[in-house]
Amino acid sequence: MGKRIAYLGPAGTYSEQAAREWIEKAILIPVESIPAVANAVSSGIADEGIVPIENSIEGGVTFTLDLLIHDSELSICGEVIVPIHQCLMAHNKIDLADIKNVISHPQSLGQCRDFLTSKLPGAELTASLSNSSAVQEMMAASLETAAISSRRAAVLYGATILLENVEDRSNNETRFVVLSHRDHEPTGNDKTSLCFEYGGNAPGILSGSLREFASRDINLTKIESRPNKKSLGRYVFLVDVEGHRTEDLVAESLDALNNQVSMMKILGSYPSAQRK
Amino acid sequence: MGKRIAYLGPAGTYSEQAAREWIEKAILIPVESIPAVANAVSSGIADEGIVPIENSIEGGVTFTLDLLIHDSELSICGEVIVPIHQCLMAHNKIDLADIKNVISHPQSLGQCRDFLTSKLPGAELTASLSNSSAVQEMMAASLETAAISSRRAAVLYGATILLENVEDRSNNETRFVVLSHRDHEPTGNDKTSLCFEYGGNAPGILSGSLREFASRDINLTKIESRPNKKSLGRYVFLVDVEGHRTEDLVAESLDALNNQVSMMKILGSYPSAQRK
Repeated sequence: MGKRIAYLGPAGTYSEQAAREWIEKAILIPVESIPAVANAVSSGIADEGIVPIENSIEGGVTFTLDLLIHDSELSICGEVIVPIHQCLMAHNKIDLADIKNVISHPQSLGQCRDFLTSKLPGAELTASLSNSSAVQEMMAASLETAAISSRRAAVLYGATILLENVEDRSNNETRFVVLSHRDHEPTGNDKTSLCFEYGGNAPGILSGSLREFASRDINLTKIESRPNKKSLGRYVFLVDVEGHRTEDLVAESLDALNNQVSMMKILGSYPSAQRK
Repeated sequence: MGKRIAYLGPAGTYSEQAAREWIEKAILIPVESIPAVANAVSSGIADEGIVPIENSIEGGVTFTLDLLIHDSELSICGEVIVPIHQCLMAHNKIDLADIKNVISHPQSLGQCRDFLTSKLPGAELTASLSNSSAVQEMMAASLETAAISSRRAAVLYGATILLENVEDRSNNETRFVVLSHRDHEPTGNDKTSLCFEYGGNAPGILSGSLREFASRDINLTKIESRPNKKSLGRYVFLVDVEGHRTEDLVAESLDALNNQVSMMKILGSYPSAQRK
């Protein structure tokens, strides 16, 4: 039996595409939200779950970051990078000038803002809760309604693609992480994700903490801050470093950091993704 | 004549509330997007513009951060902190059990997730492009439709409030910044916002840069990273420090930082907000 992988559905989302790239012959289980992906793994319905964590244009996916910080005891065991290409689609072939309304997720509308302003200046914009639901809503609306979504969603729901690659910036990629009960054993080309928080006023002492990595020649590949959700201006920091948590220098720097913070959580060590 | 202040409309948004707190007797000009606020100031239609930059639960407002980094030559001349309280509203008094659909901005739906799951488990959720448009759409829909929005939007559009403070966390605040052609003169209780980027692999050398502030006893009150929009894993850092850019030690540390980075932009010095 193949591995069971939960992802943010419905079918046709970029999360489904990431899951198919992670394991080709997996049994894919669509669920309705990012927390539900984690729940599916925690409860044993799925072996692993895949969630978006960062987009090259829009930045961190806050639902996922907050889940990892506050609400999940799962580990990251892998990552997948998926190029994002948005398509404009409708019921049938239609002139752009005849399009009265465009439905998509607000983030996708944002990624295509210049295109919409220049090519569809008169069209009304309507928000939908996912790229896939946008296509379903479009197919239930008038013939003068269009949607912005993935090529696969167009195929799945029977829409006609009018234009491909309508995103404003061509270097649009999303990084997904794979959640499991355990992280990954060392492979020699790994990274480690962690988060931490200070008891006192935070960013003033951050530079000292980051030196624990720099002084051991450990490269940081990412740093991000999220509100700690208790008080405006107080943050949890999320950091990715090169190397596996079981390597001596990485383990040393994590120990040293742990002595400076009020909370530290190692989210997992896993192989660095190769771009396709 | 009062100052003309552009804000993200329509009337009834939290941005309007921030503008009214910033200057009580201003002439308020609602515009349709965050970039349009900046354009209104650049073009002279407004004297100042007010935009949300950070929420205590959801984190940075990416549209505003990216505008400040990439697309605007305006300066920050002030900040305002507004407590956010969400209300559930409908056409008339109605039992929660009879609500079939709830309309709101996806971020507001996210802020009320626990409430919606526990009290309205059967209701369908519908996305809208702003909290105010959600109320207008609700008033045009069936009597069994509800919206989540501000108290002021309920008053403006004639909705009936069913429940107040339906947000999951009570410490929900948004920080707004005021954009102008110039920043603010020193007051003795100021902060300075800036952004910078490295030419090479970024976060590895960040700790050294932050030491320029720490070694001069300048407190960082915020650090955040945004994608540089050219390549996944490359970032622009946004930092707030205590003090005015014309103070000696602040000016020294900014000079030192400027020598280490490929891009630095001082977004402005302005008085720290007092919470009401």
